[in-house]
Amino acid sequence: MAPIVEKTSSGREYKVKDMSQADFGRLEIELAEVEMPGLMACRAEFGPSQPFKGARISGSLHMTIQTAVLIETLTALGAEVRWCSCNIFSTQDHAAAAIARDSAAVFAWKGETLQEYWWCTERCLEWGAGGGPDLIVDDGGDATLLIHEGVKAEEEYEKTGKLPDPASTDNAEFQLVLGLIRDSIKVDPKKYSKMKERLVGVSEETTTGVKRLYQMQISGSLLFPAINVNDSVTKSKFDNLYGCRHSLPDGLMRATDVMLAGKVAVVCGYGDVGKGCAAALKSAGARVIVTEIDPICALQALMEGIPVLTLEDVVADSDIFVTTTGNKDIIMVDHMKKMKNNAIVCNIGHFDNEIDMLGLEALPGIKRITIKPQTDRWVFPDTNKGIIVLAEGRLMNLGCATGHPSFVMSCSFTNQVIAQLELWNERSSGKYEKKVYVLPKHLDEKVALLHLGKLGAKLTKLSPAQAEYISVPVEGPYKPPHYRY
Amino acid sequence: MAPIVEKTSSGREYKVKDMSQADFGRLEIELAEVEMPGLMACRAEFGPSQPFKGARISGSLHMTIQTAVLIETLTALGAEVRWCSCNIFSTQDHAAAAIARDSAAVFAWKGETLQEYWWCTERCLEWGAGGGPDLIVDDGGDATLLIHEGVKAEEEYEKTGKLPDPASTDNAEFQLVLGLIRDSIKVDPKKYSKMKERLVGVSEETTTGVKRLYQMQISGSLLFPAINVNDSVTKSKFDNLYGCRHSLPDGLMRATDVMLAGKVAVVCGYGDVGKGCAAALKSAGARVIVTEIDPICALQALMEGIPVLTLEDVVADSDIFVTTTGNKDIIMVDHMKKMKNNAIVCNIGHFDNEIDMLGLEALPGIKRITIKPQTDRWVFPDTNKGIIVLAEGRLMNLGCATGHPSFVMSCSFTNQVIAQLELWNERSSGKYEKKVYVLPKHLDEKVALLHLGKLGAKLTKLSPAQAEYISVPVEGPYKPPHYRY
Amino acid sequence: MAPIVEKTSSGREYKVKDMSQADFGRLEIELAEVEMPGLMACRAEFGPSQPFKGARISGSLHMTIQTAVLIETLTALGAEVRWCSCNIFSTQDHAAAAIARDSAAVFAWKGETLQEYWWCTERCLEWGAGGGPDLIVDDGGDATLLIHEGVKAEEEYEKTGKLPDPASTDNAEFQLVLGLIRDSIKVDPKKYSKMKERLVGVSEETTTGVKRLYQMQISGSLLFPAINVNDSVTKSKFDNLYGCRHSLPDGLMRATDVMLAGKVAVVCGYGDVGKGCAAALKSAGARVIVTEIDPICALQALMEGIPVLTLEDVVADSDIFVTTTGNKDIIMVDHMKKMKNNAIVCNIGHFDNEIDMLGLEALPGIKRITIKPQTDRWVFPDTNKGIIVLAEGRLMNLGCATGHPSFVMSCSFTNQVIAQLELWNERSSGKYEKKVYVLPKHLDEKVALLHLGKLGAKLTKLSPAQAEYISVPVEGPYKPPHYRY
Amino acid sequence: MAPIVEKTSSGREYKVKDMSQADFGRLEIELAEVEMPGLMACRAEFGPSQPFKGARISGSLHMTIQTAVLIETLTALGAEVRWCSCNIFSTQDHAAAAIARDSAAVFAWKGETLQEYWWCTERCLEWGAGGGPDLIVDDGGDATLLIHEGVKAEEEYEKTGKLPDPASTDNAEFQLVLGLIRDSIKVDPKKYSKMKERLVGVSEETTTGVKRLYQMQISGSLLFPAINVNDSVTKSKFDNLYGCRHSLPDGLMRATDVMLAGKVAVVCGYGDVGKGCAAALKSAGARVIVTEIDPICALQALMEGIPVLTLEDVVADSDIFVTTTGNKDIIMVDHMKKMKNNAIVCNIGHFDNEIDMLGLEALPGIKRITIKPQTDRWVFPDTNKGIIVLAEGRLMNLGCATGHPSFVMSCSFTNQVIAQLELWNERSSGKYEKKVYVLPKHLDEKVALLHLGKLGAKLTKLSPAQAEYISVPVEGPYKPPHYRY
Repeated sequence: MAPIVEKTSSGREYKVKDMSQADFGRLEIELAEVEMPGLMACRAEFGPSQPFKGARISGSLHMTIQTAVLIETLTALGAEVRWCSCNIFSTQDHAAAAIARDSAAVFAWKGETLQEYWWCTERCLEWGAGGGPDLIVDDGGDATLLIHEGVKAEEEYEKTGKLPDPASTDNAEFQLVLGLIRDSIKVDPKKYSKMKERLVGVSEETTTGVKRLYQMQISGSLLFPAINVNDSVTKSKFDNLYGCRHSLPDGLMRATDVMLAGKVAVVCGYGDVGKGCAAALKSAGARVIVTEIDPICALQALMEGIPVLTLEDVVADSDIFVTTTGNKDIIMVDHMKKMKNNAIVCNIGHFDNEIDMLGLEALPGIKRITIKPQTDRWVFPDTNKGIIVLAEGRLMNLGCATGHPSFVMSCSFTNQVIAQLELWNERSSGKYEKKVYVLPKHLDEKVALLHLGKLGAKLTKLSPAQAEYISVPVEGPYKPPHYRY
Repeated sequence: MAPIVEKTSSGREYKVKDMSQADFGRLEIELAEVEMPGLMACRAEFGPSQPFKGARISGSLHMTIQTAVLIETLTALGAEVRWCSCNIFSTQDHAAAAIARDSAAVFAWKGETLQEYWWCTERCLEWGAGGGPDLIVDDGGDATLLIHEGVKAEEEYEKTGKLPDPASTDNAEFQLVLGLIRDSIKVDPKKYSKMKERLVGVSEETTTGVKRLYQMQISGSLLFPAINVNDSVTKSKFDNLYGCRHSLPDGLMRATDVMLAGKVAVVCGYGDVGKGCAAALKSAGARVIVTEIDPICALQALMEGIPVLTLEDVVADSDIFVTTTGNKDIIMVDHMKKMKNNAIVCNIGHFDNEIDMLGLEALPGIKRITIKPQTDRWVFPDTNKGIIVLAEGRLMNLGCATGHPSFVMSCSFTNQVIAQLELWNERSSGKYEKKVYVLPKHLDEKVALLHLGKLGAKLTKLSPAQAEYISVPVEGPYKPPHYRY
Repeated sequence: MAPIVEKTSSGREYKVKDMSQADFGRLEIELAEVEMPGLMACRAEFGPSQPFKGARISGSLHMTIQTAVLIETLTALGAEVRWCSCNIFSTQDHAAAAIARDSAAVFAWKGETLQEYWWCTERCLEWGAGGGPDLIVDDGGDATLLIHEGVKAEEEYEKTGKLPDPASTDNAEFQLVLGLIRDSIKVDPKKYSKMKERLVGVSEETTTGVKRLYQMQISGSLLFPAINVNDSVTKSKFDNLYGCRHSLPDGLMRATDVMLAGKVAVVCGYGDVGKGCAAALKSAGARVIVTEIDPICALQALMEGIPVLTLEDVVADSDIFVTTTGNKDIIMVDHMKKMKNNAIVCNIGHFDNEIDMLGLEALPGIKRITIKPQTDRWVFPDTNKGIIVLAEGRLMNLGCATGHPSFVMSCSFTNQVIAQLELWNERSSGKYEKKVYVLPKHLDEKVALLHLGKLGAKLTKLSPAQAEYISVPVEGPYKPPHYRY
Repeated sequence: MAPIVEKTSSGREYKVKDMSQADFGRLEIELAEVEMPGLMACRAEFGPSQPFKGARISGSLHMTIQTAVLIETLTALGAEVRWCSCNIFSTQDHAAAAIARDSAAVFAWKGETLQEYWWCTERCLEWGAGGGPDLIVDDGGDATLLIHEGVKAEEEYEKTGKLPDPASTDNAEFQLVLGLIRDSIKVDPKKYSKMKERLVGVSEETTTGVKRLYQMQISGSLLFPAINVNDSVTKSKFDNLYGCRHSLPDGLMRATDVMLAGKVAVVCGYGDVGKGCAAALKSAGARVIVTEIDPICALQALMEGIPVLTLEDVVADSDIFVTTTGNKDIIMVDHMKKMKNNAIVCNIGHFDNEIDMLGLEALPGIKRITIKPQTDRWVFPDTNKGIIVLAEGRLMNLGCATGHPSFVMSCSFTNQVIAQLELWNERSSGKYEKKVYVLPKHLDEKVALLHLGKLGAKLTKLSPAQAEYISVPVEGPYKPPHYRY
């Protein structure tokens, strides 16, 4: 049973949980605006000239309060916007309601089924006459994936008359994607191909989504230009690091109320996300242990006083397990069986396959007790011991708390706005080919600059003599491209 | 309109918000039990001998999940229990429901009016035939206060025939107390005097409540023995410090989702509570400033790299204000008018009079916008700037989050159980006079010991030669009474 | 061969390493004065009235630059002073030279033999005609011990004619003490008894010395009043904690240049000294493990994320071992044999018997390689592995670095000055009996107050209404005696 | 008066301070070897095949104990080595003596004049018959500079007959360089040109030296291949960051004994070096303020709770000033005049021109009081206030302490060894042109790997399925080139 699209009095489509939460959403959006100086500066600088006039933007990105401020920045610059979440648990329903009522077409609610999730993604790309969006704001790459898979299937269908077959894959979620495309080909065998034609480009938010884009660039299958926002310094070294330092303990506390002090916490992966998580746990008084595959990141952990061991070494004696790797099969059901009673297991990396949820669900005799939404105790048959799994293995900071706080998301989203502007402004110039680009460093520095005033910071100015001495322009950029911060 | 007492099928009285939350409460109680090794050890050690057989215990202490484990430890040791919260916002309704259904008479819900609050306190002391409770577990001293004020008024009434006059005080809350006593004298002019006769003693949890007790001891007005649990090391140096280090950021995040990193946070007071708050804010990336009256605590802050300034110095440039002083009139409405837009103001000390809520409410033209329960934006008339006040100035960790986590409350509450046992066991021995006592150090050390195993710690044993060398028993206590930890 | 006392041109006695270092000492004393605001404030407040006019003060306390500022504060207030070190390695020779040349009779040099050490102590108490000192400043209690043992032996000698017999004890150092007293009885069988008569009192600096005093108070053998300076908050919670946080890594770095980051460091004992050491090591990037006998201190360590284990658990895998216990026999030679090659072993507690130096020296085949003074590599015969022992097991911060920094010593020493003033001013009032006293809290708070200005702090003032509300005087003291800070 | 070259009994040249310190140097070298697992692993892996057989290596790099282990790793691999320091204060004389006696030709001592410094650099490049070195290990680029300036002057001389004229520059140090080259042309007008012919390449250690190399690459003047070791992750993110976190407080404590807790410390620059310094100061209890030109680095400081202000804002109220910028003219004499009495000023960036030493020396009436070597108090004429300048404005960690500790230098130097091997092995392959190269990531990861065992770390292994999932080889490298760590 597909959900049914609703319409506002002005005729804009939406599907959200509860429109009566719009006022509450609006109040929190107003609070967030004060905390998002980069986005508000974009409104002040670009709003008057309406650079997005005529642009259709589709976004697939956690439909939170912070995203609401992003969406309303895009509309304030003249865009028309449709939106869905990129995670079944990450929508904040009051944010969705406020945006649906006031600003853009939203298809998102907390606790979608996977089927609903892909229905929302499809709606988000559905612009009616004239094909799809001009621009995509993506997080994790699902909107981009759907279009690429759609085009591939349509081409196959044109060539061979064969429709995509969900049974051709084991992956339950990919079966849904193929089903969706199969059904759309039956209705319009050129839908995604037309979409591709119109599309100016995509800006992508995450490590995972970016990896997919580079793979498509390498294989030559990328269908439109992409800007890698994830690797802006003001994104990956801020949102990933400081965002998770904030939202990991937030999620743990909201979901379990457990005291972090005194506990042994295992952080799988010591990239930017892992670094933020480890720092938060350590300063809360937990004893942190890191697992790593990369010797450089491992040595960084050691220099911070954090032991580096394997999961096998510590699985039986630890209290909290956090996956941050961006890889799959990190904590398997066999690990979980060895854990202490009420050990907490959660993921803040990307997909739920960091934790072997399938293996857990399939374990004969396993019993799932839902303490409250997103907090389940799974009880093993033999021992009667249980473990606490958060957000069903999906992003726990979005599932159990409210994701990253506004200020750090303002850094990430200002990069998104600038990337979207860049793609749109250069849509006819040929500047961007079907490749993946990062934003130039002076824009990265600009994003940072827009956030300093709020925190009362005062920058020092280079003198011309100093600038010459270190061979940089007085106004920046100040660092070579390979600088690591 | 007084609330109406309800009864369980077994005839036990209660008044809670929603009995249907009892199952949810029970699940969280079971999780908490795993985190409260001290209380569970008391059940194992003392449960079989039922030492509280025949004892009536009234408790006035935040009706949370952790308190539920305390209550069920008391009942597991044989006591009959009646309970109310000591704060209008601190009840967790699912905890109240589970206890009311399964274990004890509970009168508590989140969001009581002050009138309801004192009604609940009265119910908690109401044991029907035979007067009041044998023992009181108190937090902040309101149950003790009610009895002392009741006895005072009854004695005055007996001597002079004069009833207490609520109009004799400006303090709105104390007016309610006097009204309550006036009404009870009309019904039974000896109610509190009889209660006093029966009472074996009280154990008190907080700095504020303990201060009241010492004042009564000095003035000779204390009516029964009191054990000061607050000054057990395993209480004040754990719950106050590590509890607040956990629950302050928890409350801030749940109430406002604001990013702590980069913000300027002012902590008023650098006692144990202030130390915990400052540590949490600092490690989250905030710039912390402390205000202090005590030069020793001030110097401690400085040694930790925290500047000590006055509120006037910093009120206009700071983002977050936290009161922890245990005193009144710390942040006045004139301070609040000078704050930045959306500055956050909250209290984790004791009473709401740390913040000048009365002055704020009385300001002509002030506008209160409730973002969500316990999170209000107060907008000033002239500037249209607002400030965010949490939990109406009451304890923000209990109002906006779930209070301190189970593990640290297990330390505090194990002290309570031991104090209650001590009072009850010595009820006829004359060991305790109408004075304030602290627990002996070996019991304090025992409380700590009961919590080490859960964290995987292994203690070193003194050899007899070493014990003799430092002149302590091999089994402890290991420190002189004045040792500060 | 006893050393020979020298004299300055003005006739003042001394014995130091190298008088030519006096200018260097003077320069560093001048730097230290800027960092010791408490002592300088004493000079400003009390200097003009010369309260110590006529007082003879003997001090037995590490003869460092900071102590030099203490000595010259005593002389600035009118006292005559004689001084020795309370540790064979802790003298800074340039400080000793400057004081010997300019201000007081000094008998101290870095690297005394034990025999020389006690010779210096004897000289320090030797005031010629009229017996001994009026006042003693003591650290560890050796000056006090010598007088008490002297009096005991003289009384025995008077009664029985028996001289003390060094052979009556196994303790090599105590043999020296007995020999010294035996020799002095032969010359003057009333020397220490006359000294006792004159003595007004002692102020004692350390945990160890204070413990001895309380034991003598309990046994009734204390011969004169004593002020326990160690338990002033501004001493034990500052010098012990923040002083060691500074001077432990300082000593490790000067002695070994070893990188602390990444190492596993075991801190034996988690009292104030241990807390400071653990904090320093942790923030330098070491993984810290604590050993403890006291469950309360153990639980504090755990709340800070530090595991608590036994030495046996970790001896083979750790890199750095620090004793802070104030007890004996903490790290035995059998432990040392199990350590990794080049493990570092040091003591910052009190006496060198925290580490089993006797056992190490006595091990057959052991080889000692002195890398540089105070840094020895001891090589075990079988394995050819070695361990690095600092300062021969004595206080490593004084042996390998320069002890605690001036600012924190200013807190401790201002307590000393105030205690000495109190003893002297009340010498005839009978206020102080032959007991151990702590300074009243308002003086403790005053010491802190004198140190705030230097750090730019501004205190908040209590209003009279606030002071009444919490029942303290507006001017303090602000806390009850049992408050733990 | 040029120094005179001496010779060992075996005929190897040297000039060091005191050959009698060689034994002490050897003992410390042996300690350091245990702390430098990367270098020792190189000896084990490559030593047997003697890959540097026949190679002449000249090094210009702080002649410390750690460098001694580097040198003896190069000789263990078959090289002949000549060495000088790259800083007039950074030589550890016992290290120089041990190497001169046992392993290589050393020209270095602590406290060289600038003239002596360049004499040493010249000696280091002087290999007698057959021209100069095959390979250069450079730090700061002075050896590379001398050759490039030499070649330029020789070419000019050949063309025009004009000798370099020291009077043509204001820079006192560059005058010495030109004088040196002028004198060498008089003796051999092809000396540097022949050197250039022979040279296989240089590996450069520092940000500053690397910047010079890239400038030469851009201008086309680079004379031989260069490997940028500085930008190996295992160099810049370890030595710069963790090295300075260790050695900044070490230098401050050895030079001044000042208590860091409670002080206000200004760190100019928040790159890797500044980050390490700020972290160390903060954890020692100082209040840290950062000055920055780069908004991204500024925002990083703010996220760590560190305010970002300009030097002008804070110069009058701060206690400690540290330059880390790699730029010039950071703290000018006008700043210094406004500082508090005994403010400490020091540089851990690169050259002494970060601090306006010339301006300070030239101030009329200024008085310099040397407390001890490398610690000067400069007293201003009008106010009589002084400031403490460390190491005459040069690298304070090398001038006042012993530089970075062995372990972190093992990371840096293992990169050096690998870079030298790469240059030498590929000397005939044409792989390296006259450009600047960084080491490939798998070598960077290898350096890290060699350091994990010493710290007891255990890496997790990727499964083939996981490796494929994230598109990396099972054996690494694990990150894309732009990854920032």
